[in-house]
Amino acid sequence: MPSHDQHENPLLLTIAEDLTITPCEKGLFDEAQSYLDSLTKPKGSLGRLEELARRLFAIGGGQRPLRVSPAIIYTIAADHGVAQKQVSAYPQAVTRQMVENFLRGGGAINVLCANLDLTLCLVDAGCAGGPFPKHPLLLDRRLGEGTADISEGPAMSRAKALEALRMGVDLAREAALDGCQCIGIGEMGIANTTPATALFSAYLGMEPEAITGPGTGLSEEQIKRKTAVISEALRVNQNSVRNGDAIAMLAALGGFEIAMMSGLIIGCAAEHLPVLVDGFIATSAYVAARAIEPGICEYAILSHASAEPGYRKIMEKLGERPLLDLNLCLGEGTGSALAYPLLRAAAAIFNDMATFESAGVMGAVSNV
Amino acid sequence: MPSHDQHENPLLLTIAEDLTITPCEKGLFDEAQSYLDSLTKPKGSLGRLEELARRLFAIGGGQRPLRVSPAIIYTIAADHGVAQKQVSAYPQAVTRQMVENFLRGGGAINVLCANLDLTLCLVDAGCAGGPFPKHPLLLDRRLGEGTADISEGPAMSRAKALEALRMGVDLAREAALDGCQCIGIGEMGIANTTPATALFSAYLGMEPEAITGPGTGLSEEQIKRKTAVISEALRVNQNSVRNGDAIAMLAALGGFEIAMMSGLIIGCAAEHLPVLVDGFIATSAYVAARAIEPGICEYAILSHASAEPGYRKIMEKLGERPLLDLNLCLGEGTGSALAYPLLRAAAAIFNDMATFESAGVMGAVSNV
Repeated sequence: MPSHDQHENPLLLTIAEDLTITPCEKGLFDEAQSYLDSLTKPKGSLGRLEELARRLFAIGGGQRPLRVSPAIIYTIAADHGVAQKQVSAYPQAVTRQMVENFLRGGGAINVLCANLDLTLCLVDAGCAGGPFPKHPLLLDRRLGEGTADISEGPAMSRAKALEALRMGVDLAREAALDGCQCIGIGEMGIANTTPATALFSAYLGMEPEAITGPGTGLSEEQIKRKTAVISEALRVNQNSVRNGDAIAMLAALGGFEIAMMSGLIIGCAAEHLPVLVDGFIATSAYVAARAIEPGICEYAILSHASAEPGYRKIMEKLGERPLLDLNLCLGEGTGSALAYPLLRAAAAIFNDMATFESAGVMGAVSNV
Repeated sequence: MPSHDQHENPLLLTIAEDLTITPCEKGLFDEAQSYLDSLTKPKGSLGRLEELARRLFAIGGGQRPLRVSPAIIYTIAADHGVAQKQVSAYPQAVTRQMVENFLRGGGAINVLCANLDLTLCLVDAGCAGGPFPKHPLLLDRRLGEGTADISEGPAMSRAKALEALRMGVDLAREAALDGCQCIGIGEMGIANTTPATALFSAYLGMEPEAITGPGTGLSEEQIKRKTAVISEALRVNQNSVRNGDAIAMLAALGGFEIAMMSGLIIGCAAEHLPVLVDGFIATSAYVAARAIEPGICEYAILSHASAEPGYRKIMEKLGERPLLDLNLCLGEGTGSALAYPLLRAAAAIFNDMATFESAGVMGAVSNV
C-alpha cells in the first residue's frame, strides 16, 4: 500500500480524526493527456498549461468541465518572537499595520485579487497587540500574541501546532462548503523568512548558510546575523529536529501562519481542491505539509519562484519548478494571485477547445 | 541626436510618410520607480511587475492612471512557399483549416482571449486557396496566395514587404482610434518557423545550425533537412542579407504575417501603445522591427519564452528575458494572451495600492 494511505498515517488523525487524503488516480492523468492530444494544436504545444489541465482533471476525480472558479486567497498574518533578534528590516509593528492596510484595501494582494477575479480573506493567526476590531474581510483565528523566539526554544507547543493545523484544515473545509473550486495561500508576518528558512533546513537537511537570504532587504552583515540566529534555533530545538516527527519540527521552528497554511494545504488535498502555494514562506508550509502527508503533493501548485536566493536550491532539492518567475519577494499571496489566471486558462483550454475531428483539421503528417 | 530619431530614419518614411517614433522619456522611468517605492511593500519586491509599471508609465507619456484595457490580439495568418520543402510536420492546408477553426471559436487563442478579457481579431495576410468568406472576426489584408519559396529566391518583393509593413502600421492606428490601450500579436502559418529562423540568422548573425528546431514536431533527421533549407535560403538571398537594408532582409526571408507583425509593432510604438510579442515567429517580427527602427524596443514586451531550443540563444543575443516560460510552442498569440493579466496587474498595482504615508505603515528601519 502507498505510504500516503490514510490508515498508515497517524499524524493526520492527530490533526482531525476524520481527516483522510486520497491520492489522485494515476489513470486520470493519462486520460486527460489523451484528450488534450485530440485538441487542435500540436501535441504538447501548450506545455505547462497541459500539465495544469492534467492535474486539475485528476484532482477533480475526472469531472468535466474543469472548474477553478470561484476562488479565494487566504492571507494569514501572525507575529514571530524571533523578530526581537533584528532579523528583519522592518519593525514588528508593521505586521499589524499591514493587516490594517489590507483591511482598507491598500495592499498589493488587495489590488491583485480585485483585478484577477479572486476573493480575499484575511486571517489573524496571532498578531501582537491583541485582536483587531471586527471586519468583514477578517477571520479571527488567533493562537496567541505571536510565537516564542525560536532561537531560544520552541516557537509553540505541539498542541498549539495541532490547533493551527486543524484551523487550516477547517478553513479549506469551509471554503469547499461555500463552493470554492480553488484556494490560494499567502502570509504576512515580520521576520517570517527566519522560521521559514529554519524549517527548510530541518525538513530538507540544508545548511542555513546555503539558503538564508535578505528577506525584505537586509545587508550582507545583517544576513550573517540572521544566519547565526537560524543556526541557533536549529541548535536549541535539536531534539525536535533530530528525533521529532514532522509536527514536532513545525511546532519547534514554525509560525502560527505557517502551520495554518500547512493545515490549509492538507485540507485542500482532503477536499480534492487545487491549492496555489505562494513564495518562500508559503513554500515552507508546503514542505511541512508534505512531510506530514506526502499525498498532498499533487494538490499543491507552486505558483511563483521567490527572489530569495535560497529558493532555487530548495526547488532543486524538491525537484519542482513553480509556474512564474517574476522576481517577486513580497508574499501576501501575490504569487498565488498572479498564477491564478494560468489555472483558469488551463481549465478553459481543456473545456472549450475544438478537437481535430470536430474542426476538420488535419493532423501531423510526418510526426515521429 | 539618438539614432532612433525619425529624421534620421528614411526606412520609416518609406513605410508611411507620416510615420514617426518618439522614444520614451527617460525621466518617466525614474518618476514611476519613485512612486512605486512609496507604495506599501519593500522596495523592488514586486520585481518584474514594477518593471512593467515603469514601462507602461513611460509608454503612456506619464499619464495616470495606467490603462491597458481594452486590449486586442491580432492573429495574422499566411502561407509560405517553403512549405513545399517539407519543413513542417503539418501539410500547408492546415493554415487555412486552422483559420476556419479560429473563425468557429475552437482554437487555443479563441479560448484564451475569451477567458482573459481580450478581443480577438484574425487577419488573413495571404493564405493559399483564395479569400475566406466574410466573417465578423476576420480582416482581409491579403498580399497574395502565400510567399514564394525562400530557398529558391526572395519571399516577396520589396514593394510587397512595404505594403505588409504599412498594413500592420494601419492596424495599430485603427486599434488606437478605437480606444485600444494594449495590442498583442500572434500568427498562424504552416512552415513559418523556417522563415523566422532565417530572419534570426540574417539580423542577428547566428548560424542556422545553432537555432533551427523542431517547430511543431520534426524528428532529428527532419531538423537537419530544415537547417539545410534555411542555409540555402540565406545563400540564394545573400545579396539582400549582406548588402541590403533591414527591409530588404525582411522581403527576402520573411512572410506576409511576419512583415505585417513587424508593421504592427512599429505602429504601436508610433501610437504610444504597449505591444505584447508572442513566441518564436512573432519575436522574429520584433527583431525585424527593431532592425528597421531601434526606437520601438521600449514599446514591445516579450511575453513568452518559446520552447523552440534556439529561442534561449536568441534571447541571450538580444539581452532580453520574456515574462513567462511555460514551455509553450504554439504561436497564435497564446503567449501574448497569457502575459496580458500581468500587464493588468502591473497597472493596477501602480494605480490602486496605498502609499506608506497614506496607510500609516512604517518604512524599513535598517534598510541599506
